[in-house]
Amino acid sequence: MKQDELKKLVGEKSVEWIKDGMTVGLGTGSTVKFMVDALGRRVKTEGLSITGVTTSKATAKQAEELGIPLKSVDAVDHIDLTIDGADEISADFQGIKGGGAALLFEKIVATNSKKVMWIVDESKMVKHLGAFPLPVEVIPYGSQKVFERFEQKGYNPTFRKSADGNSLLLTDSENYIIDLHLGEILEPERLADELIKEVGVVEHGLFLNMVNTVVVGLADGPKVLDANR
Amino acid sequence: MKQDELKKLVGEKSVEWIKDGMTVGLGTGSTVKFMVDALGRRVKTEGLSITGVTTSKATAKQAEELGIPLKSVDAVDHIDLTIDGADEISADFQGIKGGGAALLFEKIVATNSKKVMWIVDESKMVKHLGAFPLPVEVIPYGSQKVFERFEQKGYNPTFRKSADGNSLLLTDSENYIIDLHLGEILEPERLADELIKEVGVVEHGLFLNMVNTVVVGLADGPKVLDANR
Repeated sequence: MKQDELKKLVGEKSVEWIKDGMTVGLGTGSTVKFMVDALGRRVKTEGLSITGVTTSKATAKQAEELGIPLKSVDAVDHIDLTIDGADEISADFQGIKGGGAALLFEKIVATNSKKVMWIVDESKMVKHLGAFPLPVEVIPYGSQKVFERFEQKGYNPTFRKSADGNSLLLTDSENYIIDLHLGEILEPERLADELIKEVGVVEHGLFLNMVNTVVVGLADGPKVLDANR
Repeated sequence: MKQDELKKLVGEKSVEWIKDGMTVGLGTGSTVKFMVDALGRRVKTEGLSITGVTTSKATAKQAEELGIPLKSVDAVDHIDLTIDGADEISADFQGIKGGGAALLFEKIVATNSKKVMWIVDESKMVKHLGAFPLPVEVIPYGSQKVFERFEQKGYNPTFRKSADGNSLLLTDSENYIIDLHLGEILEPERLADELIKEVGVVEHGLFLNMVNTVVVGLADGPKVLDANR
């Protein structure tokens, strides 16, 4: 199967976990797009009553068009389940997210969720994290200095460009993204600790000890993995 | 002497450390305002050639009106000396800053400075930090949840209001400020570590191991203290 078919497969599978009355965190990205489409169909055809909490302007727009009721993370008592994609998932269920530049709101929503599920095609499952560039969201003022410190540490940083390539990408919070090309991250906890303490860093794409369930799209069907946390 | 006279005293004293050719970080606040006025006079009367790096829109406006040349922190090679105020300084030279809501840019500029000087009236010198509310800059999305977690920890949080009191204050980066009313902070390093790892927190007002020199305004004149770092 092609990658897009695997994404569709897990996107459609994942909505089976959504029950009537739930508050559901809706992630961002190409795989989540299939999930939100499937959820919209359940709302329409089954009359499923749920409240969505979005992680980006893009997902909010899609959900609104499908008639999925939305609330801010601050307006709900809790989030029962968040379903999101991931750019890489290691053998011990740690993740890199932020390829879609929505890592800040994604992490805020995940942090406020009772359960977190990631849905991915099989290409995202890796032994160690790091082949995928690690996104770091930074305050624009001083970002060149942060970039230089990353350079000095050998983190091979690049500023994320906007879609047209003519300017720097701005996140939904109007910050920049610096991608770190690390190759392999052997100590994700240590790196996360270092990055978050860097003055000017708002958030980073290491999502550690956060996911409970992973649904992987394989050629012979979706496979459900339990992270045992 | 009244508090304002002490602030003026240290503001005017501190510009003696500024030498021709320096790149100087300009803090924010009522004491710094006197310093920037005095610096403007030196630029005008002595023809002192310096470059200022500001920490807020407010200070940028004042410096521009006085004819002090300004650059972004990202446009300078380094900052020789930053002169800023502080809301509290402990006996071991740790500080709380952010009463003026400029803590994020102040910390970015301080981090990129070779030397940092704080100028304060004597009321700011304390044994332990914490009587002054500790400001925490947070992303608006999810800020209510961060607030609730602070409440559960007994940190007595309050959202900072705008000047007219009718809405929440927005920082120069369009974030909110949550003030923590802690009474006494006995382990500032531990608290700083905890706060910066809280998802949704951009920066906090604990400025640890950052200042080199403190100039305190006393009734009998300015006193210079060396933090020995």
